[in-house]
Amino acid sequence: MISVMAEQLGFIGLGVMGRPMAGHLLAAGHRLTVNNRSRAAADELVIAGAHMRNTPADVAREADIVITMLPDTPDVESVIAGPDGVLEGLRAGAVVIDMSSISPAATRELAARVAAREAKMLDAPVSGGEIGAKNATLSIMVGGDAIAFERVKPILACMGNPERIVHIGTDPGSGQICKICNQIAIGGALAGVSEALALARKAGVDASLVRHALLGGFAASRVLEVHGERILNGNFAPGFRARLYQKDLRIAEETAAAHGVAVPATSVVVEMVERLVSEGGADLDYSAIGR
Amino acid sequence: MISVMAEQLGFIGLGVMGRPMAGHLLAAGHRLTVNNRSRAAADELVIAGAHMRNTPADVAREADIVITMLPDTPDVESVIAGPDGVLEGLRAGAVVIDMSSISPAATRELAARVAAREAKMLDAPVSGGEIGAKNATLSIMVGGDAIAFERVKPILACMGNPERIVHIGTDPGSGQICKICNQIAIGGALAGVSEALALARKAGVDASLVRHALLGGFAASRVLEVHGERILNGNFAPGFRARLYQKDLRIAEETAAAHGVAVPATSVVVEMVERLVSEGGADLDYSAIGR
Repeated sequence: MISVMAEQLGFIGLGVMGRPMAGHLLAAGHRLTVNNRSRAAADELVIAGAHMRNTPADVAREADIVITMLPDTPDVESVIAGPDGVLEGLRAGAVVIDMSSISPAATRELAARVAAREAKMLDAPVSGGEIGAKNATLSIMVGGDAIAFERVKPILACMGNPERIVHIGTDPGSGQICKICNQIAIGGALAGVSEALALARKAGVDASLVRHALLGGFAASRVLEVHGERILNGNFAPGFRARLYQKDLRIAEETAAAHGVAVPATSVVVEMVERLVSEGGADLDYSAIGR
Repeated sequence: MISVMAEQLGFIGLGVMGRPMAGHLLAAGHRLTVNNRSRAAADELVIAGAHMRNTPADVAREADIVITMLPDTPDVESVIAGPDGVLEGLRAGAVVIDMSSISPAATRELAARVAAREAKMLDAPVSGGEIGAKNATLSIMVGGDAIAFERVKPILACMGNPERIVHIGTDPGSGQICKICNQIAIGGALAGVSEALALARKAGVDASLVRHALLGGFAASRVLEVHGERILNGNFAPGFRARLYQKDLRIAEETAAAHGVAVPATSVVVEMVERLVSEGGADLDYSAIGR
């Protein structure tokens, strides 16, 4: 049996999230090749011992495990199934872990194409944002084959909180469904907190005292705690950018429609985010919908 | 200086909430007179040492502090300002504490009428439901005069968690505004959790695993914890009845409109509650909107 540490890892997508996540894999002693659209993003990791490859296919050719961390569904489709994509180089027996937040329907299609190459694909979107990525405290919601999940769990544990790495289901896309549920639950809570604090202010009541009182009761939530404070202080430095939340909610609405689920509260949140983005707030933290 | 324990208390409204709350005052050694529309509700308290009076005015005639705990705005208006109401018997220097959840606008009017009798009125709505009332762990959100607040704080502490008794502001109605904010924040969170768990189920994912995963991250909330479990188990024994939540949200919408605050997410929650009530769920726990 080959030990996990001996496996060759590949990491594609070195953005705000991917860079620190790949850094944790290196720091844990893993052998790592990387690829990114812009080469500059990889410099730091190459200095730390990663090897750069020119294409996703080149990364896949020598990797036992290929991790992707990309902004949106088309990016993942292109990096995995496009020209010079992962599928062109993927080894039999390899595992692809897509940690991006993308469409569950697209995930199912990609998982089928990976399976046709005698490899496995796991969807493993994360929650916790840039801070979670930097501190290796991400929550990770995983869908796909149970044996592949057990195999890669120690690798995921380099990037997330081991107690918060949950295997949601063996169906491809289960992790993405859970991530959507996460974004929907957060959206409702954020809309409620926004309206509550707006009313407190307009009614001439000290909104920070209201937040304090509400934190002691049934309205207590991480959203009230963290985003409530951001809203009160007007501090909307990201964090998690509004345009990415807008993308997640677009996927949420599509997926809800595909399964015949009514999401009227989520639709209200979508409108709030769209107004924020149209007013120039795309790169503010998404909690700015409560301004 | 007269010690608080020497003050004569009156309690009007011995419903599901009022009965255990009044019981805590007796248990703490306070002298207590009570009044309730139906006399049977007072039996237990009379056995425990309370004295029954025929009208709210009679309670007020001998009380230093009069507490009201009633279902809705018209009930409080009638008990305080109606025939044989508190105002008819109220002593100069007394404090009226209305712990009902009612309209802030009506509260301001009643507070002015109490002030005209050289007494003070505090609005002190609670959060925590029947369980909080029974366990004396209520959160209490108080509006009104600061000196009156300090005077009655030890009495409130018999019924609530001392760390969660918050003086929101000196303007009459400030406590009611805070309670509305509480119900709005809970509503958004509950709508988000409802839609998230509905999607998980319809998409064929284990909704209890989704709840577990979400509790570890940014979507964590008391609503996800407690109501999420109720929704998963289909256990909608109250708790807090849907018809009372509907009443609170009606007040929330009226108050938001009066202050020019848009509350589109709350409107969605109102629709969810109205559907539940119209389908016969008025006496289910309000979390049943997530069925």
